[in-house]
Amino acid sequence: LETLIATKAARCVEAARGRTLVDFALRRTHGFDAGLACARSSYLAGFQGSSNVLAGQVFGLPVYGTMAHSYVTSFPSELEAFRAYARLYPDQTVLLVDTYDTLCGTAKAIVVARELAAAGRRLRGVRLDSGDLVELSKKVRQLLRQNDCGEVAVMVSGNLDEFRLDQLLHDGAEIDVAGVGTRMGVSADAPYLDMAYKMVEYAGRPILKLSPGKVSWVGPKQIWRHYDDSGRMRGDTLGLAGEADFSADALLHTVMQDGVRMQPRESLAVIRERCRLERAKLPESLRAIRVKPHYPVTVSERLQDLQARTRNQKLVAENEPSARGD
Amino acid sequence: LETLIATKAARCVEAARGRTLVDFALRRTHGFDAGLACARSSYLAGFQGSSNVLAGQVFGLPVYGTMAHSYVTSFPSELEAFRAYARLYPDQTVLLVDTYDTLCGTAKAIVVARELAAAGRRLRGVRLDSGDLVELSKKVRQLLRQNDCGEVAVMVSGNLDEFRLDQLLHDGAEIDVAGVGTRMGVSADAPYLDMAYKMVEYAGRPILKLSPGKVSWVGPKQIWRHYDDSGRMRGDTLGLAGEADFSADALLHTVMQDGVRMQPRESLAVIRERCRLERAKLPESLRAIRVKPHYPVTVSERLQDLQARTRNQKLVAENEPSARGD
Repeated sequence: LETLIATKAARCVEAARGRTLVDFALRRTHGFDAGLACARSSYLAGFQGSSNVLAGQVFGLPVYGTMAHSYVTSFPSELEAFRAYARLYPDQTVLLVDTYDTLCGTAKAIVVARELAAAGRRLRGVRLDSGDLVELSKKVRQLLRQNDCGEVAVMVSGNLDEFRLDQLLHDGAEIDVAGVGTRMGVSADAPYLDMAYKMVEYAGRPILKLSPGKVSWVGPKQIWRHYDDSGRMRGDTLGLAGEADFSADALLHTVMQDGVRMQPRESLAVIRERCRLERAKLPESLRAIRVKPHYPVTVSERLQDLQARTRNQKLVAENEPSARGD
Repeated sequence: LETLIATKAARCVEAARGRTLVDFALRRTHGFDAGLACARSSYLAGFQGSSNVLAGQVFGLPVYGTMAHSYVTSFPSELEAFRAYARLYPDQTVLLVDTYDTLCGTAKAIVVARELAAAGRRLRGVRLDSGDLVELSKKVRQLLRQNDCGEVAVMVSGNLDEFRLDQLLHDGAEIDVAGVGTRMGVSADAPYLDMAYKMVEYAGRPILKLSPGKVSWVGPKQIWRHYDDSGRMRGDTLGLAGEADFSADALLHTVMQDGVRMQPRESLAVIRERCRLERAKLPESLRAIRVKPHYPVTVSERLQDLQARTRNQKLVAENEPSARGD
């Protein structure tokens, strides 16, 4: 799950081209532990924080929130709601402006921005959660600028994922921050990773399964990664553990042995920075949002040999009349 | 999540046309609590049980398991693996026959079936997990029958969902039991339910939001369901709570008040039976697997009136210059 969500979140980060992203997924993740995993994984992938306050407490990552529509509708008027919210959170006021009409809501947010400014504070942002986000974000930005509120951030939310973020920015939306929820939190277009652990050796004997379409590679393995001169990844070699190292980086390391962790625990900041650096080494095609990526993986000769030998032995042995109990 | 999974599972039950289904989803659900929710929800929807033993312990639902490929490959030969498994679980032996070759595996399972029979036991089933399940299930069934093992169940698994089950049975697969995993457990084609709670009344004041594409219906509501003469559902009416009852069933009941449950807790068996009876009342079109269903929902006049009045008042009030702080 963590790999799945981190991948989806990293794609959102690529699509956002530097805009700040916040995890809004908790209400649609498949339960609470999925919600925690989502907040942590998306933060590691480059999100700025999460609306999940428990994740903030557990992992120490930044929490963000804005008002809900029910907060606005619970007041007799939108302006009263905005003023009450600004009194409650004077230093981090982000006003949700689309409950009745986004542009009218923005006009009221500007009133509150002036009131905050008069008190020595400032309005942090306005959030758009519906409608044509391209057109509305441009108009809202213009309104803000015309009223000396150019520094107020424009935040958007609502059914966002990497594809919609990419499209919005391509179409000229003027966005500083985006809340990304459901589609990232359940990895909507790829909600599972078709991965399984397979036994590859038992009591010194190499092992595989030969089920059609599900043949596994035999033996304990290592992966070596190759880079081009600019430091970009150009392909991997899959081989047997203990093979010559191809003068390349070996990716698999022992992280736990006999129940003991082999390296000290890393902070979120360290993991997040490594994620950023590793993403920068990806070939451009793997960072594209809409292109089906290709990445060359070759299999070492020794692994191919062992695979063929084990396969043939097993095919013969299991099909002999004696093996069938005949 | 529970509604999502129960719906997906109920569709699998419809597609299986009476075959036994078992939840195999735990390894791909989005975390452990999602796995528990999946085991419980699919059981309520008509599955026979789950491979999730914790769910068995927590909810008291039947647990099922078969051997893993790694169990087979850990033995020098498949026949030895089958014999060891049959010694371990003599009363519930289901043998996984596709590790090397499904038909050879079945031949070995027949050997073990005879050995079990000689000891007064019987082989419960064989499981196919790969390949062309239509052709293989027919051949396996034939092999079993030719060897006086006609009562051995044929179980299949591997990327199943309601669409594949429907196709398999349509194509003549001879199946008694199916393990349904990943695609049901993450509701792969519809991994989230786009539902939210909305505030509809506050301090006696009817409330709505007018965000484009997200307008909410005002006021506390009731739903009345209408049936035809044969007892099939034919449509719902959405109205205001307290309206005349349309001589139809009111669907919404208070289940908790002031923190206290209003009805006693129901057993899984009771809920499961209600689910079965309610599904039987669905119109045929809603039980079909591939048809986009239509179900008529009408809105009562009183609700439409209140909606229009509240909407107009709010539109005027929020757009007045005074409301904007002008």
